[in-house]
Amino acid sequence: MEEPANSVAAFGKAQAAGTSRVEHVIHWNHGNATERSEMVAVEEPLEIRCRGRAVTITMRTPGHDEELAAGFLLTEGVIQSRHDLLRMEPCNQINEDGTENNVLNVLLAPEVAVDFARLTRHVFAASSCGICGKASIDSIRTRFPVIESTAEIEVSTLITLPDKMRSAQVAFDSTGGIHAAGLFDGQGRLITLREDVGRHNAVDKVIGQTLLSGRQADVLMVSGRTSFEILQKALAARIPIIAAVSAPSSLAVEFAREMGQTLIGFLRDRRMNIYTHAHRVLR
Amino acid sequence: MEEPANSVAAFGKAQAAGTSRVEHVIHWNHGNATERSEMVAVEEPLEIRCRGRAVTITMRTPGHDEELAAGFLLTEGVIQSRHDLLRMEPCNQINEDGTENNVLNVLLAPEVAVDFARLTRHVFAASSCGICGKASIDSIRTRFPVIESTAEIEVSTLITLPDKMRSAQVAFDSTGGIHAAGLFDGQGRLITLREDVGRHNAVDKVIGQTLLSGRQADVLMVSGRTSFEILQKALAARIPIIAAVSAPSSLAVEFAREMGQTLIGFLRDRRMNIYTHAHRVLR
Repeated sequence: MEEPANSVAAFGKAQAAGTSRVEHVIHWNHGNATERSEMVAVEEPLEIRCRGRAVTITMRTPGHDEELAAGFLLTEGVIQSRHDLLRMEPCNQINEDGTENNVLNVLLAPEVAVDFARLTRHVFAASSCGICGKASIDSIRTRFPVIESTAEIEVSTLITLPDKMRSAQVAFDSTGGIHAAGLFDGQGRLITLREDVGRHNAVDKVIGQTLLSGRQADVLMVSGRTSFEILQKALAARIPIIAAVSAPSSLAVEFAREMGQTLIGFLRDRRMNIYTHAHRVLR
Repeated sequence: MEEPANSVAAFGKAQAAGTSRVEHVIHWNHGNATERSEMVAVEEPLEIRCRGRAVTITMRTPGHDEELAAGFLLTEGVIQSRHDLLRMEPCNQINEDGTENNVLNVLLAPEVAVDFARLTRHVFAASSCGICGKASIDSIRTRFPVIESTAEIEVSTLITLPDKMRSAQVAFDSTGGIHAAGLFDGQGRLITLREDVGRHNAVDKVIGQTLLSGRQADVLMVSGRTSFEILQKALAARIPIIAAVSAPSSLAVEFAREMGQTLIGFLRDRRMNIYTHAHRVLR
């Protein structure tokens, strides 16, 4: 926030998108204090508006906002395909304090029905993750069928994904504080990767990117933990295999088992746990 | 979810609160696959109800629900003191599928005004973190004044906090997938620690615990990253020093600077970065 990215760039220092420099940070290290600047991940609100009404406001890392909106609308069940999206454009007003107003207007096809009440209830329920648990799994099942994909992936391919993620990340190395999501095909080829301070946003962005570009992924990989909502978003995007560097929650495991998703946790250092539907992992 | 905790306990194995056993997990390690059971952090919804209406539904790890509700209501500005809380009790209905319905009824003092519309907007905005950014900082400032606490802490005390957190955590070791928040006094004594799949919930729980027990903390420490919302919750609870094992976001730094909070990041391995108001850290 201290210095705009372009002025930093003017001094010839590379600065990753989605990061911001903080000056006068006191770095204390084994008894020695030094003052220096540090990079942090940018966190700003984005309001996504359909037909003039907010459908969500999320704290996100700016960039790829159209993908975020497309992924959000797909994974929340508002749209079914990219043809439901006619146009997306930022509302170019500037707030009184000089900041951008961070509103994205989405023009939907006229035949798309938007249940604002359900969306509000839904997001209302999403203080940290998604719709309201077990009781809602049935309602999700009626909207999104069980995954019966025949996609498969080799163990030897899976163990290469964490390194592929890390080498594609641009903001993590400088900030140490940003989530990443990546989509891969069954041969372990990276389709797209996005970083965001909000892990759900990173997932929405990669899903939105493939929706807008018309591609299909077999594997969603996330840099952190898997909760119910990550699984629900992957289900909506019809992704059969979900892998994470860290642990799943109880409800993530339960949901994956019921919905036919292969759930992998602790994928790092040539190790992993396969929690559900292991038949898609070839050994 | 596979096996209730008490049946596991009946076999003489210790199982931490908030964890659940998953059977038939395939553990793959450098070419060797074994089948075993794994512990995961429990994730279930909790609806907090005031005057018969939901004020939030959050995905949380069950346990200490009253503290979670008290902390949530304090940090969202609904209540100002414990005297505003008359009684909290779970709604003991069982859902059709046999699960508990996870509703906590909160009886507020009659003079407490609940702005349901603002709360809904607020939580509506909280897809991953809190009220809607910069524009809202002003409105927060009018509700919660800048921190002018004279609390201080020695660097030599700060560097002991991560180990104190870890040794007080019960669920992390078995699941590897749960957030922790701890409150400390200026001498580095642990006041309370809570774990939850949702990091905001862990913060609400420790704040609620001190509210209900009438104690005051100088330092909030979290196991992960600091976002805007963590700082906002600490502000509402009048905690002057916030420390985290990992990185802050840009808005967390900005907010802390404006609101007079000392923000410390990357506090681990006898190192730390002090981002704002370093005068409270004695070297």
